[in-house]
Amino acid sequence: MVYKKITLVGRSAESFDAAVDDAINRAEETLAGVHWVEVKELGVELASVETREYQAEVEVAFELEGEDGE
Amino acid sequence: MVYKKITLVGRSAESFDAAVDDAINRAEETLAGVHWVEVKELGVELASVETREYQAEVEVAFELEGEDGE
Amino acid sequence: MVYKKITLVGRSAESFDAAVDDAINRAEETLAGVHWVEVKELGVELASVETREYQAEVEVAFELEGEDGE
Amino acid sequence: MVYKKITLVGRSAESFDAAVDDAINRAEETLAGVHWVEVKELGVELASVETREYQAEVEVAFELEGEDGE
Amino acid sequence: MVYKKITLVGRSAESFDAAVDDAINRAEETLAGVHWVEVKELGVELASVETREYQAEVEVAFELEGEDGE
Amino acid sequence: MVYKKITLVGRSAESFDAAVDDAINRAEETLAGVHWVEVKELGVELASVETREYQAEVEVAFELEGEDGE
Amino acid sequence: MVYKKITLVGRSAESFDAAVDDAINRAEETLAGVHWVEVKELGVELASVETREYQAEVEVAFELEGEDGE
Amino acid sequence: MVYKKITLVGRSAESFDAAVDDAINRAEETLAGVHWVEVKELGVELASVETREYQAEVEVAFELEGEDGE
Amino acid sequence: MVYKKITLVGRSAESFDAAVDDAINRAEETLAGVHWVEVKELGVELASVETREYQAEVEVAFELEGEDGE
Amino acid sequence: MVYKKITLVGRSAESFDAAVDDAINRAEETLAGVHWVEVKELGVELASVETREYQAEVEVAFELEGEDGE
Amino acid sequence: MVYKKITLVGRSAESFDAAVDDAINRAEETLAGVHWVEVKELGVELASVETREYQAEVEVAFELEGEDGE
Amino acid sequence: MVYKKITLVGRSAESFDAAVDDAINRAEETLAGVHWVEVKELGVELASVETREYQAEVEVAFELEGEDGE
Repeated sequence: MVYKKITLVGRSAESFDAAVDDAINRAEETLAGVHWVEVKELGVELASVETREYQAEVEVAFELEGEDGE
Repeated sequence: MVYKKITLVGRSAESFDAAVDDAINRAEETLAGVHWVEVKELGVELASVETREYQAEVEVAFELEGEDGE
Repeated sequence: MVYKKITLVGRSAESFDAAVDDAINRAEETLAGVHWVEVKELGVELASVETREYQAEVEVAFELEGEDGE
Repeated sequence: MVYKKITLVGRSAESFDAAVDDAINRAEETLAGVHWVEVKELGVELASVETREYQAEVEVAFELEGEDGE
Repeated sequence: MVYKKITLVGRSAESFDAAVDDAINRAEETLAGVHWVEVKELGVELASVETREYQAEVEVAFELEGEDGE
Repeated sequence: MVYKKITLVGRSAESFDAAVDDAINRAEETLAGVHWVEVKELGVELASVETREYQAEVEVAFELEGEDGE
Repeated sequence: MVYKKITLVGRSAESFDAAVDDAINRAEETLAGVHWVEVKELGVELASVETREYQAEVEVAFELEGEDGE
Repeated sequence: MVYKKITLVGRSAESFDAAVDDAINRAEETLAGVHWVEVKELGVELASVETREYQAEVEVAFELEGEDGE
Repeated sequence: MVYKKITLVGRSAESFDAAVDDAINRAEETLAGVHWVEVKELGVELASVETREYQAEVEVAFELEGEDGE
Repeated sequence: MVYKKITLVGRSAESFDAAVDDAINRAEETLAGVHWVEVKELGVELASVETREYQAEVEVAFELEGEDGE
Repeated sequence: MVYKKITLVGRSAESFDAAVDDAINRAEETLAGVHWVEVKELGVELASVETREYQAEVEVAFELEGEDGE
Repeated sequence: MVYKKITLVGRSAESFDAAVDDAINRAEETLAGVHWVEVKELGVELASVETREYQAEVEVAFELEGEDGE
């Protein structure tokens, strides 16, 4: 029963908390058994968006079950 | 008059700001002379809690006085 | 058309989000072409302020134009 | 013929060596062409397990073949 | 609309630039919406190849769409 | 209910696993509520010991309760 | 006679070497006494450019003379 | 016989050597069995002191004896 | 009232303390409101100088006031 | 009486402990006065060996005596 | 059969690729059994050379045989 | 004309400056063409010495000439 970790970058126009939640929400839509999340980087994109986009790079750890998942 | 630093992990169901405040509140209950705090890690626990628990590992620096404190 | 990065420390009595915004606001007052921001450190100052001052050290990247800017 | 690296956390009630082997075993069940493994973190979980669970976070590098694999 | 990052190691008998391009080419064959790439490590393999193999470990960030992709 | 982390260096004449266990054993003698342990450094001392002493520097996280503990 | 270091991101459609040179060229247009350059990050931008833009973040060290320069 | 490490910040109006000694002196007042010290950060405070205060953050390792010490 | 940080390399034929002071002296000649300094690297140059030149790379933090300073 | 440090990669078909011992054994065959060893990386090679080869990169510190040794 | 790693800085007036090759060429003149190379730092020297000197600090790993080699 | 870097730990009963000089002195006794030195770690040994021993781990870079030197 190993864990696997994937790296996502969540995005929000509101806050870093919301950017982290955005990444967790996305992970939970497609993955069962998400156990914990580690924040790796926080940043703000300004050039390619209307105002400010808060971004959070996170590692999402979930339990691998069965034979799929890689 | 040296400073000492200890490492705490604050926790909140609301936000990372609240998790940092949680750790500072706890430090100030038992320590006088807290000078500054450095955030070392941010993470979210999901497996062992009801919804999401925001966690902030912080180093708390306070001024050592007298002979105690280690 | 190179980018230049400068390091600012934004400060807020409210939150880390506001501290980051504080640094971006200051950068945009004097610089055109701010493209992105990277958060390098988060901390809280307690000793020299009234209550708690949230601080965010950020690197601000902007596009250099013309001959000035260093 | 690029390599791809994925991050797994192997777990064992016995030892760190066994935790690393656990992650490699899982990778080799579903992936052909595993070339090497790098240990990134070692830790022990105590709160949510019966006694002690040794954990090893590893990066597993394998050769990508064909069009699948991402 | 979160981004996902995967880690690839591109390889070339010519140069580091070509090794990075090798990894990007492979990513673009199977992934739409590649946004940016970060170089993590550069190395040269000599023992198991004919002359010298330049290797570049890169993180490739792409926009996740729909429900697949993990 | 914050966690506190302390840093110990366990020592063993046998193995790194035993050195980590040595540190955890010591922590559990005097602390209730040890939750997890992170390995920070592994080393071997040779000059000041009879043969070889395996050493493991670990961070031990435990839940703070009541008013003591700093 | 202290040195000052500034951080630039050079960009090139050709190669990382050219991206580094781009940053050095820009620095030498406006600064006398550039002594050395350290490469901090290499990356490739794909989303906002026509094909691939090689980027090199560098620190440029130059000798401060007179009273200006900050 | 594990070691424990604590983090202190020594301070001196004279030099970094004196700041390190300041931290060691304080540790030896209250702790028996100090074995070694690692310097983690050097800095200078100017705003809240009369002239310049040299600061040295150090980790102090000492041998834990008996049942106390955490 | 954000802080800005710049990077200087102080130099001295005598000692590292003097090299740090050299950088602070230079900063204070042209900047008001220097608050603190962090030492990033220490080194010694031998090839291009007569005997030994002690060098200290430091980050200098000062309070930005008015509209200039970038 | 300075120390010198060299970097070795020990290898074992059995365990990481044995890989570290392998490097120390090799160092002690040719060097007198080995004082301590620091583990820098742990990994497993699979592609070029029969089953699994545990590898440990270590720094070996020994006391330099006389005029040789570089 | 341990590996040993040494650190070289290759230099070239042309490119970083050539600087890395320069270091490998030098290693292979005097060492048999070079297995792999890791790039640690890239930089450009300008002050003490005619135009630009590209430098690459690399770690070279080779297999130790017999009793010499330290 | 590549550079080679070796790692030494200088020791002094007086100061960190003297510990760095100790390592440089030792290097210059046996090596021609020492170009620069980088300080990697500072520490103090207390357990195995009479009072305090200041230690400085440094990397010494020198120009390789002829066929020897590895």
